Amino acid sequence: MLKTECFKRVRYAETDKMGYLYYGHYAKLYEIGRSEMIRDLGITYQHMEDELQVMMPVLNLNCRYRMPAKYDDHLRIVTILDEMPTKMITFRHEIYNQNDELLNKGEVKLFFIDMKTNKRVSAPSYLCDKLQKFF
Amino acid sequence: MLKTECFKRVRYAETDKMGYLYYGHYAKLYEIGRSEMIRDLGITYQHMEDELQVMMPVLNLNCRYRMPAKYDDHLRIVTILDEMPTKMITFRHEIYNQNDELLNKGEVKLFFIDMKTNKRVSAPSYLCDKLQKFF
Amino acid sequence: MLKTECFKRVRYAETDKMGYLYYGHYAKLYEIGRSEMIRDLGITYQHMEDELQVMMPVLNLNCRYRMPAKYDDHLRIVTILDEMPTKMITFRHEIYNQNDELLNKGEVKLFFIDMKTNKRVSAPSYLCDKLQKFF
Amino acid sequence: MLKTECFKRVRYAETDKMGYLYYGHYAKLYEIGRSEMIRDLGITYQHMEDELQVMMPVLNLNCRYRMPAKYDDHLRIVTILDEMPTKMITFRHEIYNQNDELLNKGEVKLFFIDMKTNKRVSAPSYLCDKLQKFF
Repeated sequence: MLKTECFKRVRYAETDKMGYLYYGHYAKLYEIGRSEMIRDLGITYQHMEDELQVMMPVLNLNCRYRMPAKYDDHLRIVTILDEMPTKMITFRHEIYNQNDELLNKGEVKLFFIDMKTNKRVSAPSYLCDKLQKFF
Repeated sequence: MLKTECFKRVRYAETDKMGYLYYGHYAKLYEIGRSEMIRDLGITYQHMEDELQVMMPVLNLNCRYRMPAKYDDHLRIVTILDEMPTKMITFRHEIYNQNDELLNKGEVKLFFIDMKTNKRVSAPSYLCDKLQKFF
Repeated sequence: MLKTECFKRVRYAETDKMGYLYYGHYAKLYEIGRSEMIRDLGITYQHMEDELQVMMPVLNLNCRYRMPAKYDDHLRIVTILDEMPTKMITFRHEIYNQNDELLNKGEVKLFFIDMKTNKRVSAPSYLCDKLQKFF
Repeated sequence: MLKTECFKRVRYAETDKMGYLYYGHYAKLYEIGRSEMIRDLGITYQHMEDELQVMMPVLNLNCRYRMPAKYDDHLRIVTILDEMPTKMITFRHEIYNQNDELLNKGEVKLFFIDMKTNKRVSAPSYLCDKLQKFF
């Protein structure tokens, strides 16, 4: 199991008329969470796309909203990988505010596409080799 | 059961590096779907907020991605209400492109807040009265 | 001179904590304006990119805000082309609400890139031929 | 004169079909720049809104695009205040990538509204007192 965290401040651009972080922006928080988890492994998603020609479209997204995030909140994005990726990879996320209140939980399931053939492939060894020791 | 539809073109602003509609923007399509369903009833969400002081935060969001929406696609957003709202309301959505291919399915569950007391309330009669005949 | 118009409703996603359309979203309204002007000519920006391999990056953006656009406003986007494009093209925009109040004015200057060579080129004849009669 | 800097990574959500940071997102970078400049003074824009009931709508935005920002670029947002605010405040911005290339320059002019009266006011002393020593 691998668990990482990173931070993101809520900007005016992301608030809505209720004064909350708009419900659609959590998908972006999850993107930040998974790309920073990958960076923490010493690799980048950018390298996967540009060099390995593997991209990761999303198959499924689930969000559960417990409390609103508000303007200027300094959010902690916790990202959890429970299992080694196979043909798919599932990231779990928990969003906390600066008072350590759990605001939101979500999961994102993605798959791997070889951009040269446009076919589904397994998780590249570039990623799996780095993950091995956590499982 | 109530089923309505409306249309939305994919803009450059909404595409990502893959050339797809970014996965987080489907939440906005669902927002368009549910607010246009309410408008089709002859009422508006704006009136609910401004006059009745009832707002509808989101409790849960689920998206399943089947095929990517692409730049300039003219999307058909189908919105379905299977049940009369109670303390909650659940909208189902299906997104089709101009070739009538099903790209995405999702559900959004919302609840009702009285903005004066900040307490949860049941669906306002302003909305329920209009929905009654469909169930 | 060519002048076209199209419409866009302000969505919750686009409002901010002040209850206004966020100031950064006007760039998207201008994008809608210029792409719909091109569509009104019987051609599409999508075709320019995909078939002619010509893309149009933005060189300059200017926005002047007079009155805020608000949630659910039904905006009229007026797009004006004062001159035939050369190496550059400049669109002027005016944004009105449903009460015909002028909310915002802006200009966007773009240039043309040949995607095969990554070099700047003149406006393609695909576009100029359609524009000729208006100037 | 006051000059501060902060950093922002370009996310997938913010890229477009060209693989560039969408031209409309620079307004958000400028928002980050000015709110972090204010935070660096030891005060917050949030406090101005919530406690002083003063908000700052935008009057004018200007952006000049020199080179595209790309996915995963680690942008440096330089924010410059050339003059003490009066009835208005003008922030200048320069955006650099991780190779210290200047990508974009812009200015944002804002004014001050007393939220209780909805009237224009001068810059609050809460802000001016902190700025005095830089001019």
